[in-house]
Amino acid sequence: MKILLELSYKGSAYHGWQSQGNPGIKTVQGVLTAVCERLVGGKCLITGVSRTDAGVHALQYFCTLEADSITIPCASFPYAANSLLPEDITVLRASECDDDFHARYSCIAKEYVYLIHDGEHRDPFLSDRAWHRLYRLDEKKMNEAAEVFIGSHDFTSFCSAASDVGDKTRTVFSCSVKRRDDNLVELRIKANGFLYNMVRIITGTLVGVSEGKYEKDDIVKMIGSKNRCLAGMTAPACGLYLNRVFY
Amino acid sequence: MKILLELSYKGSAYHGWQSQGNPGIKTVQGVLTAVCERLVGGKCLITGVSRTDAGVHALQYFCTLEADSITIPCASFPYAANSLLPEDITVLRASECDDDFHARYSCIAKEYVYLIHDGEHRDPFLSDRAWHRLYRLDEKKMNEAAEVFIGSHDFTSFCSAASDVGDKTRTVFSCSVKRRDDNLVELRIKANGFLYNMVRIITGTLVGVSEGKYEKDDIVKMIGSKNRCLAGMTAPACGLYLNRVFY
Repeated sequence: MKILLELSYKGSAYHGWQSQGNPGIKTVQGVLTAVCERLVGGKCLITGVSRTDAGVHALQYFCTLEADSITIPCASFPYAANSLLPEDITVLRASECDDDFHARYSCIAKEYVYLIHDGEHRDPFLSDRAWHRLYRLDEKKMNEAAEVFIGSHDFTSFCSAASDVGDKTRTVFSCSVKRRDDNLVELRIKANGFLYNMVRIITGTLVGVSEGKYEKDDIVKMIGSKNRCLAGMTAPACGLYLNRVFY
Repeated sequence: MKILLELSYKGSAYHGWQSQGNPGIKTVQGVLTAVCERLVGGKCLITGVSRTDAGVHALQYFCTLEADSITIPCASFPYAANSLLPEDITVLRASECDDDFHARYSCIAKEYVYLIHDGEHRDPFLSDRAWHRLYRLDEKKMNEAAEVFIGSHDFTSFCSAASDVGDKTRTVFSCSVKRRDDNLVELRIKANGFLYNMVRIITGTLVGVSEGKYEKDDIVKMIGSKNRCLAGMTAPACGLYLNRVFY
């Protein structure tokens, strides 16, 4: 039996989504699996849409839960699960799904949001929720440069050198930067897939554009170079949110 | 020498503002005093505008810092202090002030905000930042009832029975409730002073109005009764923010 769970989680206290086989390393998948096994009274296989990194958040996340038998009705499942889950993970919905549905491979697009706080002093309510930059960002300049990422490109330059993925071509459907609030700038990017650290390197590069380190044309060259060293820095995990998942 | 500090803090990890003379009990005043004494190299007296309770937040808070000598210029003080303070306390500004200025007694009004999240499931990003209610609130009904609090009243019914304050008359300048976001309701109240737990009991009572336990007229009777037992429950600390301070 297979059900689809919609979650939201604050990633600050976790070493990312993916279980690491070491019970000393707390992961969202690990905590959720333990709760589901307690609820269904047997082994559970949890498969997530994406591996989020340590400290990365999810406003919307999907995973499937497979078990021999799940007697709790889907409508009650979120209440039952949330009563056992820690406060930083919430199950929003549960629904039956077909056996051939795959949380990861059935996904056609994902949207990430990256938040940057550019107030003069850090905001105690945004620590581990946004990247703090001391100087005011030029969100218009960043937004103009952001459109270079739209389209199908080989994103080798915007992928952690530690990644061993083969084909690094991804299609970015939209990429924009706007000021959401007085001191809060938001990058929003939707693509058919993302490479390891891709959004964080794109964010770091666009902050570099705001700071005058790069021009829009430099990003065209960065993409063409297929060389991680030529792109900007990797923005910290704390500002990154998986915002929407499309099936 | 006396300087005025403007702060912001997330109160979740603190047993309120006020030092309790016990180093094992972490308070905002205690942590700030230790940092200031390190910065000025001598004894510091920190006087705050208000005692906030354990778990209560401050978006704006003022305190004075008195010391024999403060050699750090005011313009640099926030940077120096923030480099030593934990991430949940930020010094926003420092300015010289007259000796006869008193952080508490010179204050003419304060505004508090109380946040209530009324989504079906808890939000991992709002735990310890809003009170979670499972059922949707009627913010219009709450707002209509809220106006009963405006004016000068003896607020004995809306004050913790543990308080030993003499005169319980306070003047509320404004009190309103609105929906700030899909699942987030905001109470905003400004007064010349507040009694112990006053905003939290007002909030609990207005939630009771939304839930049909009380009518607007009942609040008039509650105020008249001067009896804490007749008012509503005390809303939890986590949703309460000192929002603005007026001198």
